[in-house]
Amino acid sequence: MALLHDVLEHNAQWVAERSRPVSKAPHKKVVIFTCMDTRLVDFLEPALGLKRGDAQMIKNAGATLVDPGGGVVRSLVVAIHALGCGEIFVIGHSDCGMAQIDEEALRHSMVSQGVPEEAIAALRPSLHEWLGGFHDPLGNVQRVVGLLRENPLIPHGVPVHGLMFDPASGSLKMLVDGYLYAPE
Amino acid sequence: MALLHDVLEHNAQWVAERSRPVSKAPHKKVVIFTCMDTRLVDFLEPALGLKRGDAQMIKNAGATLVDPGGGVVRSLVVAIHALGCGEIFVIGHSDCGMAQIDEEALRHSMVSQGVPEEAIAALRPSLHEWLGGFHDPLGNVQRVVGLLRENPLIPHGVPVHGLMFDPASGSLKMLVDGYLYAPE
Repeated sequence: MALLHDVLEHNAQWVAERSRPVSKAPHKKVVIFTCMDTRLVDFLEPALGLKRGDAQMIKNAGATLVDPGGGVVRSLVVAIHALGCGEIFVIGHSDCGMAQIDEEALRHSMVSQGVPEEAIAALRPSLHEWLGGFHDPLGNVQRVVGLLRENPLIPHGVPVHGLMFDPASGSLKMLVDGYLYAPE
Repeated sequence: MALLHDVLEHNAQWVAERSRPVSKAPHKKVVIFTCMDTRLVDFLEPALGLKRGDAQMIKNAGATLVDPGGGVVRSLVVAIHALGCGEIFVIGHSDCGMAQIDEEALRHSMVSQGVPEEAIAALRPSLHEWLGGFHDPLGNVQRVVGLLRENPLIPHGVPVHGLMFDPASGSLKMLVDGYLYAPE
């Protein structure tokens, strides 16, 4: 094909993609739960070949679950039951900033910026317990996959996959193949 | 400047951007809390001029707070105290899928996929209360900004801005200018 035709064909496809009405229900029927890390912004999605309209994205610090009935699980519930998502990807990453957080330094920074000690002490799970979950990003992905699989709010038929992402190279590795555990 | 020089200058900048080591601490010192909506994927960040390494991104269903000590607030705490973020953007969006969710239809879908009624009944806040927060996306942004501003875990000096995003056009409007409330 001549270059002119190549270019025109690319443009027609590009325009079609840009102008297609994007549905609220994600095209690839997948919901991704991953980390808020800035190195994943504008990097994880293209590395996974995900475009606008393909997936729901849930993000927090370290892709950790604080509460089995909290915001993350509720978001997954809506993604599955109201937006048609049929699979969950839990994606942790290597070199996670959370893994290196010094609890005492964090506490000191909070108090020095005016956070009352009582507000920190009132946290359940405690700051100590919560930060403990970050020291092993790989173990955290496996733990979160297990917690979601056992969570009664997540239907058994929905595969929960566990993956690790390299925030430097963009490579993705499978830890847990959710298809092995979900009934057809 | 001649075209050749334009192109070479662009390329030099592009290479420098691609190859700069991306720090865990976001370059623009900002943490964004927004919705998991698929129409925002690969769209909100470029619409805000945010690139890899610029910002932390927290996402859940409807950008809502379920628990004042839950995963979202903890993620903000880490973004502020461990990663140097000095501002919070709460970004809701118009035409939010959550606003149209029918509670009975959602409940029916959950039960029909094997979720026990008791697991739904055990949710605190209840499904009904939680879904109620979505009917007014604009009011939700204002409410979340207020809750974060009053949260003892968020330092008073950190401005909390409230914004609304149009998932069709990509335009962003300010609802709450956090600079007006945060001391210098």
